[in-house]
Amino acid sequence: MVFETGDTLLFIGDSITDCGQARPVGEREGLGAGYVSLVNSALGARFPETVVSVLNAGISGNRVTDLEARWKSDVTDLKPDWVSIMIGINDVWRQFDREELEDQVGPEQFQSILAKLVEETAKEVKGIFLMTPFFLETHLQDPMRAKMDQYGAIVREIAEKSGARFVDTQAAFDKYLAKRPTQSLCGDRVHPNLVGHQILADAFLAAI
Amino acid sequence: MVFETGDTLLFIGDSITDCGQARPVGEREGLGAGYVSLVNSALGARFPETVVSVLNAGISGNRVTDLEARWKSDVTDLKPDWVSIMIGINDVWRQFDREELEDQVGPEQFQSILAKLVEETAKEVKGIFLMTPFFLETHLQDPMRAKMDQYGAIVREIAEKSGARFVDTQAAFDKYLAKRPTQSLCGDRVHPNLVGHQILADAFLAAI
Amino acid sequence: MVFETGDTLLFIGDSITDCGQARPVGEREGLGAGYVSLVNSALGARFPETVVSVLNAGISGNRVTDLEARWKSDVTDLKPDWVSIMIGINDVWRQFDREELEDQVGPEQFQSILAKLVEETAKEVKGIFLMTPFFLETHLQDPMRAKMDQYGAIVREIAEKSGARFVDTQAAFDKYLAKRPTQSLCGDRVHPNLVGHQILADAFLAAI
Amino acid sequence: MVFETGDTLLFIGDSITDCGQARPVGEREGLGAGYVSLVNSALGARFPETVVSVLNAGISGNRVTDLEARWKSDVTDLKPDWVSIMIGINDVWRQFDREELEDQVGPEQFQSILAKLVEETAKEVKGIFLMTPFFLETHLQDPMRAKMDQYGAIVREIAEKSGARFVDTQAAFDKYLAKRPTQSLCGDRVHPNLVGHQILADAFLAAI
Amino acid sequence: MVFETGDTLLFIGDSITDCGQARPVGEREGLGAGYVSLVNSALGARFPETVVSVLNAGISGNRVTDLEARWKSDVTDLKPDWVSIMIGINDVWRQFDREELEDQVGPEQFQSILAKLVEETAKEVKGIFLMTPFFLETHLQDPMRAKMDQYGAIVREIAEKSGARFVDTQAAFDKYLAKRPTQSLCGDRVHPNLVGHQILADAFLAAI
Amino acid sequence: MVFETGDTLLFIGDSITDCGQARPVGEREGLGAGYVSLVNSALGARFPETVVSVLNAGISGNRVTDLEARWKSDVTDLKPDWVSIMIGINDVWRQFDREELEDQVGPEQFQSILAKLVEETAKEVKGIFLMTPFFLETHLQDPMRAKMDQYGAIVREIAEKSGARFVDTQAAFDKYLAKRPTQSLCGDRVHPNLVGHQILADAFLAAI
Amino acid sequence: MVFETGDTLLFIGDSITDCGQARPVGEREGLGAGYVSLVNSALGARFPETVVSVLNAGISGNRVTDLEARWKSDVTDLKPDWVSIMIGINDVWRQFDREELEDQVGPEQFQSILAKLVEETAKEVKGIFLMTPFFLETHLQDPMRAKMDQYGAIVREIAEKSGARFVDTQAAFDKYLAKRPTQSLCGDRVHPNLVGHQILADAFLAAI
Amino acid sequence: MVFETGDTLLFIGDSITDCGQARPVGEREGLGAGYVSLVNSALGARFPETVVSVLNAGISGNRVTDLEARWKSDVTDLKPDWVSIMIGINDVWRQFDREELEDQVGPEQFQSILAKLVEETAKEVKGIFLMTPFFLETHLQDPMRAKMDQYGAIVREIAEKSGARFVDTQAAFDKYLAKRPTQSLCGDRVHPNLVGHQILADAFLAAI
Repeated sequence: MVFETGDTLLFIGDSITDCGQARPVGEREGLGAGYVSLVNSALGARFPETVVSVLNAGISGNRVTDLEARWKSDVTDLKPDWVSIMIGINDVWRQFDREELEDQVGPEQFQSILAKLVEETAKEVKGIFLMTPFFLETHLQDPMRAKMDQYGAIVREIAEKSGARFVDTQAAFDKYLAKRPTQSLCGDRVHPNLVGHQILADAFLAAI
Repeated sequence: MVFETGDTLLFIGDSITDCGQARPVGEREGLGAGYVSLVNSALGARFPETVVSVLNAGISGNRVTDLEARWKSDVTDLKPDWVSIMIGINDVWRQFDREELEDQVGPEQFQSILAKLVEETAKEVKGIFLMTPFFLETHLQDPMRAKMDQYGAIVREIAEKSGARFVDTQAAFDKYLAKRPTQSLCGDRVHPNLVGHQILADAFLAAI
Repeated sequence: MVFETGDTLLFIGDSITDCGQARPVGEREGLGAGYVSLVNSALGARFPETVVSVLNAGISGNRVTDLEARWKSDVTDLKPDWVSIMIGINDVWRQFDREELEDQVGPEQFQSILAKLVEETAKEVKGIFLMTPFFLETHLQDPMRAKMDQYGAIVREIAEKSGARFVDTQAAFDKYLAKRPTQSLCGDRVHPNLVGHQILADAFLAAI
Repeated sequence: MVFETGDTLLFIGDSITDCGQARPVGEREGLGAGYVSLVNSALGARFPETVVSVLNAGISGNRVTDLEARWKSDVTDLKPDWVSIMIGINDVWRQFDREELEDQVGPEQFQSILAKLVEETAKEVKGIFLMTPFFLETHLQDPMRAKMDQYGAIVREIAEKSGARFVDTQAAFDKYLAKRPTQSLCGDRVHPNLVGHQILADAFLAAI
Repeated sequence: MVFETGDTLLFIGDSITDCGQARPVGEREGLGAGYVSLVNSALGARFPETVVSVLNAGISGNRVTDLEARWKSDVTDLKPDWVSIMIGINDVWRQFDREELEDQVGPEQFQSILAKLVEETAKEVKGIFLMTPFFLETHLQDPMRAKMDQYGAIVREIAEKSGARFVDTQAAFDKYLAKRPTQSLCGDRVHPNLVGHQILADAFLAAI
Repeated sequence: MVFETGDTLLFIGDSITDCGQARPVGEREGLGAGYVSLVNSALGARFPETVVSVLNAGISGNRVTDLEARWKSDVTDLKPDWVSIMIGINDVWRQFDREELEDQVGPEQFQSILAKLVEETAKEVKGIFLMTPFFLETHLQDPMRAKMDQYGAIVREIAEKSGARFVDTQAAFDKYLAKRPTQSLCGDRVHPNLVGHQILADAFLAAI
Repeated sequence: MVFETGDTLLFIGDSITDCGQARPVGEREGLGAGYVSLVNSALGARFPETVVSVLNAGISGNRVTDLEARWKSDVTDLKPDWVSIMIGINDVWRQFDREELEDQVGPEQFQSILAKLVEETAKEVKGIFLMTPFFLETHLQDPMRAKMDQYGAIVREIAEKSGARFVDTQAAFDKYLAKRPTQSLCGDRVHPNLVGHQILADAFLAAI
Repeated sequence: MVFETGDTLLFIGDSITDCGQARPVGEREGLGAGYVSLVNSALGARFPETVVSVLNAGISGNRVTDLEARWKSDVTDLKPDWVSIMIGINDVWRQFDREELEDQVGPEQFQSILAKLVEETAKEVKGIFLMTPFFLETHLQDPMRAKMDQYGAIVREIAEKSGARFVDTQAAFDKYLAKRPTQSLCGDRVHPNLVGHQILADAFLAAI
């Protein structure tokens, strides 16, 4: 297990990470109702000898452009030892549910911003986790699934180049979805129920 | 236009019809925020010479078995002149998001109950509208889309046999979805936004 | 249909436009419960190939003097392609329910301000719609009806001189009121129910 | 002044009387925010030597048919010494804003029920006040004003035949409206503001 | 009647005036639930030919020192034509329920501040009403009654010297209390019920 | 100290006892915010070796007639070892603030009911405390003070005849009021603040 | 893994199980915020091929006597395949925080009731889990810890005799508490935070 | 009794003092629901001849570092005659429930800050009370009890050196706990119920 007593582990991302966490950065009882809280509980329950402080800096609706804008106050200034980033779902979703938006975040901009954030942050932390965005759709030709996969590939590439720990959330969900319908996890194919968040937490914990 | 002054038009169905209508049966300001309210407004605005009373007996979560159970109190006893039925979405959805349910409503039971309700009601009203269930998914092999189409076909068949006015909501949505992504109407592919309800209302009004 | 994909259509006015829109400018789910929302739904449902962004900048209680005061922040700075203006009801109403007000907006001031706003705005947009104020009173000698007609005539005149698209809401309501009592649309002869808002939306849509 | 110490004065009617009185029968701090409360205050302030108990049995939306249905529990069983009745506004209003209603209360039925209630009650009380319904519309040919006057005439006739004290609320308002617009008292021409309720209270007090 | 169309009548004082008026200065529906609202209703109902704007600048808990502090913003800057002042109850009450307060307002300070406010204001208005503080206690030797009477005498003296219209609220209440117990108006001998506020309103109206 | 481990001490009375206790009978955290809660705290803090269960059966507004009506369910059936009764305030108060009430509880009826309740209950408990009603008014000729003293004398007499422990709350307050004004304890002379409740609790504790 | 598709797993107990579950029996999103919800998520996430329905029949404050009273409606009638019981915390706690209670549940009664419930239920289910009560106190001579251990031993004995699956929650917590203070899991040594619930869930899952 | 009429007695500390007092400094009805309010009531009830103003500047969660930060605004600037300080519980508690905190307040820092505050304040007041922190745990080897005793000793030492009046809350509780279990006062061993607050109040009052 990579964490050491005294380490701070900060999660940042969108609504999947947020899940009602306390503003501006949640901790302890303010970690929200999603995978972050499950990771915190698991770390505490299974590694009592290691005191790790978990923070949740997810904000619903965020795209990578939003992360860039608040990175200094919500990540850098908090001086975490570890940072986990899950972003991209909204970068893709807006291209489908808000076609009229002028400030869409295309693949190039997504890659550019995320790579820059990872590069800068790597110098200041013990390590980085990169979690893919996901779309709970098994039809690979679905336009939004295809676009999400494209962004997921960008995350994988950045992880490989930077040495960040890579968490393939899409793969974790695909494995589950091979046996159960997407509706058993989700209404909108994006916001999982608690079973889905357990899948996310297990995927993260498998990488520590 | 088939309606005459003094006619009562009752809509019954699930959450797509319900949309927050007043309990147990909504009317006027209690018609909810969906297509029923839009139909009422359009009838009033475009046919002021015809005073039609619109009722909303939709209940969120209903399947055809639920309609059967409350049919007497929520339809028969209200003595409407016209009845519009849209049901089936939950009959299908539960087979995907609640696999563990023991009381699933399969196609045969769905057909049997709906056909019986239509047959009995036809004797007491001036006319019946049958609106298909729908699933805002363009991939026809999607398991839930395929199952929804099966139920939609059952509705079409019952309409043809009974002489009820048939409203193909799936076709109306498919026409729109040929040009715009499903995300522009919907989060969960089932509950449309107001644009989607306008599509439903327009489809209904085209049948009057 | 005059709108093109990418166009922004901004509605501005008083409570008839406002109808609980999100502050300071409502869009999508924040368009309020009135004719603006109905126009948005109709444009989306009937012209899916044309992606139009609709904004609602109505504020309850506004008179033309209020529009002038916020025009830069609530219209100009938003750079809409199209602007629809419906104002005057409160300019008239206050002369009757708030006789003691010192800052009444008489016909001359109303004409002067509105004409100036239209002239300035015409240079920056693709087009302007001018909707009349209305009073749901069929007795033409009613003092408030007569005064409202005077302001309606001012709007017509400004539309003719500026080339704006003219929407005669009073005429649309009068046509309905020839067949149904004003009480079927309204309590206070000013704030229509949803049937009345459908009449307004239909009148607007007939002008596009 | 007709009242004596120990007398109970009960007001019954529709929303004009109700004004948020405590259910099922309001008294003291539960008299509501309308003319009933003003009458109670005036009686107390100006006749401290006479202890009169005032009750408010008004219910919003009531027509004379509703009064008949609850007369025993809300009037007879309370054994008041005096009863004041103001009803008819909704009997008329529904003929205009709810044309589709099947149970409209026409003039004959209105006269029949009210006369019967007055006749029966006269035997059990010291006295009865009959207050007319009113419509704050000065145009006498307005259909609803004309219909309201017809019902007002019925009330006058019943008062004359029964010996009840007659309170002409329409006349009291007409006197005011000769000098000030209806909008200074009212939005919907039916529910007065506090100035209007003072007019009602003054009219009642002039009859004691 | 001293008021003329266009006059503004401003009431200022403590909780007896306040009664839940809208902040910072209430008008129309925001006049609160006390005598100010009753005066407004009576002026409107009985003198429809005279349009008077009534304002309520009462604030619960105020003493004359508080009036002095906010006089410019809450009176002077509003440029009323008439001002009515009722103050002193809390100046006295605090000497009994808050003995430990260091900033008690004794008779000399009360007289000095009130006289100054009246003198300055008289130059800017058509007229001033001075209403006494009161204590609903008939035992004249009661310490608080005696102290209140002392302050009431100060108000009378200032009225006489300044020519302000004097309203003796204590006398109005004493007349009532000669026939009915104080408990019929009040719990705490300071905050009257609506009957008490009617007494206050009638006393004020007798002075116009 | 008369109580023994396992004893139940039940307080019953009106609002002075009630003070927001949990319904129908409060205990522990539901004892309300008055003297009952203070007695419970003092017993616990000062006599930890004696486990006494305190119950609060006070109900705001009660008169001795109300106690009689609920005595079986709220006292007898609870089988307390000790009962403390404080009643009479409302029996007196209603004679002043509700003169119109037909069911006033005069001294004879008050004495008769209370004596009967005490006599019956004495047979079933270890002991009874009788606390006087009180009125925080030092002017002994005040009509309500005089009437309250009359009822207090009735309580004393019943205590003497029955052997109940007598708690003279009026005397306790009078001793305080000899040095401090009534306003330092109370607004309405009936409902004391926490200092007043401490006086009540101390008086009760002096009798155990 | 013992569960099969279609199995229902019902948890019953006190507040540790309850954790805000939906009344009267929670499922899916109504499973509460404790270990039951974590078990459900883990089963779903890690065994997607096995569809298990989880129910939560915990009720805060329950003792074994409460379970007995509602066993038929809350367990038997629901026909679960598996039942997990965790009870005893309140049976012990009341002996310390409510010494005055007459209906304390001593060890004999606890053993007798629990053994009977287990025996009867074993005949109707596939299997039973018995989870010990616990007290997060490491000082074994602490009176409540000692008493809790006694009840835990009773649970172990019943499990051994009945063949139920035994889950030693106290041991799970003791292992954690050997490394971290009790305050890191808990305020009152009884209601764990999410880390504590994870410990409970892990302990349960280790027994399946 | 050390207090004189006109004295202000200010209590400052953490949640034990706070108990929901009004912000930023509570007085009278805003003194909170704990021992401060009980002290105020007892002083008023038992010493009516001495008018003492009691203030509550407790803030939940505070440690001695927090007191230092707000000392000027919440103590010095209020110019109290007497100050009572109870602090240390959170300084200790955080070392157990928030081990990861970097800004723990060790014994040296606690002593240093508290001694400095006492020294500075002693020059400006008539007197200081120092109340120990406490932990309702009778097992003296319990790590948190031992640590709390260490801080309690620091408080005693500072009191002796400064001449402050010393209130040993731990001793007061220990005396009670010798006869009754800690659960009879408390859930979390830190926040007492009202019986516990009575113990605190009695301990304080014994020192005046």
